[in-house]
Amino acid sequence: MPINPDAVGTESGPTERSWTSKDALLYALGVGAGATDPTGFELEFTTENSKDVQQAVLPTFAVIVGGGGGGMRNVGTFNPAMLVHGEQAIELHGPIPVEGTVRTTGRITGIYDKGSGAVIATEAESVDAETGEPRFTTRSSVFIRGEGGFGGDRGPSGPRNVAPDRDADHVVTYETRPDQALLYRLSGDRNPLHSDPEFAKMAGFDRPILHGLCTYGFTGRALLHTLCGSDPARFRSMEARFSKPVFPGDTLTVRMWVTGDGEALFRTETQTGDVVIDQGRATFTP
Amino acid sequence: MPINPDAVGTESGPTERSWTSKDALLYALGVGAGATDPTGFELEFTTENSKDVQQAVLPTFAVIVGGGGGGMRNVGTFNPAMLVHGEQAIELHGPIPVEGTVRTTGRITGIYDKGSGAVIATEAESVDAETGEPRFTTRSSVFIRGEGGFGGDRGPSGPRNVAPDRDADHVVTYETRPDQALLYRLSGDRNPLHSDPEFAKMAGFDRPILHGLCTYGFTGRALLHTLCGSDPARFRSMEARFSKPVFPGDTLTVRMWVTGDGEALFRTETQTGDVVIDQGRATFTP
Repeated sequence: MPINPDAVGTESGPTERSWTSKDALLYALGVGAGATDPTGFELEFTTENSKDVQQAVLPTFAVIVGGGGGGMRNVGTFNPAMLVHGEQAIELHGPIPVEGTVRTTGRITGIYDKGSGAVIATEAESVDAETGEPRFTTRSSVFIRGEGGFGGDRGPSGPRNVAPDRDADHVVTYETRPDQALLYRLSGDRNPLHSDPEFAKMAGFDRPILHGLCTYGFTGRALLHTLCGSDPARFRSMEARFSKPVFPGDTLTVRMWVTGDGEALFRTETQTGDVVIDQGRATFTP
Repeated sequence: MPINPDAVGTESGPTERSWTSKDALLYALGVGAGATDPTGFELEFTTENSKDVQQAVLPTFAVIVGGGGGGMRNVGTFNPAMLVHGEQAIELHGPIPVEGTVRTTGRITGIYDKGSGAVIATEAESVDAETGEPRFTTRSSVFIRGEGGFGGDRGPSGPRNVAPDRDADHVVTYETRPDQALLYRLSGDRNPLHSDPEFAKMAGFDRPILHGLCTYGFTGRALLHTLCGSDPARFRSMEARFSKPVFPGDTLTVRMWVTGDGEALFRTETQTGDVVIDQGRATFTP
């Protein structure tokens, strides 16, 4: 039995991770920043030396420097080609600095048996390596196809964060590029599922699929610009479920419903109407 | 007098420069590799872990790791916003490894007075830092607007490498992206002329212009794929003159005339027919 349900509660780390201004710029380009309006828009995320512009970091960069899987190696061995991202949440305690180091502690928070596969839920808390102050928390779940049936708990089910039955309050559309995954992967996730056509075929896809976290980054940009006036200091949290694969080149439309003072629900669809990020909820400083 | 013509012949360095597989991948994406056919084309330049594909390095990467200006600081002080790239040549002694370190010695080879500006010509020889074997030589000239009139030699003039008066033997068209310069600059040249609209206006352009060396990289890709069967080991040299600015988003058409056994002349035009790289000559193993 390759999946070990007793791994729940195990911790990993702390591990340290540093990043530079260049890492933040590369990530921003990887999730489409700067592609929309090259004459000025998003220069704070894509450049470090523009006049009267202070470099800033996209909030979703937290998944890059504060992720790390929370000790997935305790879970057992499985074929990485069978792993797909299920859910992702980030919670920020302030804007992410342009460069820095965090110390991250990961934890397995749940292992669920969905029959057709296993779900592994993890959490990772990152604190500033120098001051010890909390920076951000990431929560993530992955689905591993073919690894279910070990007799474990099915875990929580049923939809959360259901959008109101009315037109969205805000709609933002971004295009991804055919080579989007080739760029995004340079921020760290080199899984060939996103770049190698042969590997993608082995995993059952016609061609490489976009990283779920890349779609997540595009979605986070839409939330940031629309709900937070582009100010990362106003971005507090974001959670969502990955519901369908995205192919590089797809168009992403993010629909947002403001449901409270500093709260919005959202989902992301492709040009075919497929919902690819679902049950999203964001909180922000109004 | 800010330009010092006596700087001719001065050497700089040697300086060491290392690069990683990731640097090579980032450069390849910066000059458009992978954007044309994401299902397989150019995976050897854009990925390091595709099945049955060995990572390789674009020959024009030599300008990134083997450039360095050849001691421009000996030339004097001038406003960097007034500097435009004039000519660029590279000569390779074999394929560039995926990672490595070179030791580069630069030399000022000419300082010319064109009246409206000064031309500074430099050469930089790079050898493998470990073995001392020659890796590549780069030659470059820059034009500094407003710094002429110091009574110096005008230097060589008249066209070289004039293409035959017939249709090109090969034509390759690539599109650049509106955010091309934002990506290319992460390979090293952070001159805000290529990213900051305010800075570009100060320099007399309506909006940021693409790095000349980015256009050069696109052109080199066209030469590599067309003349060398995509094999960097067959790529020997490339020289060309920058004749007009390119704006991010422009389409680049590279016209090649095979003029001998292992020799071709080329030029690059935009969608308006403007010649942006002129008097090009490439040599290769047929």
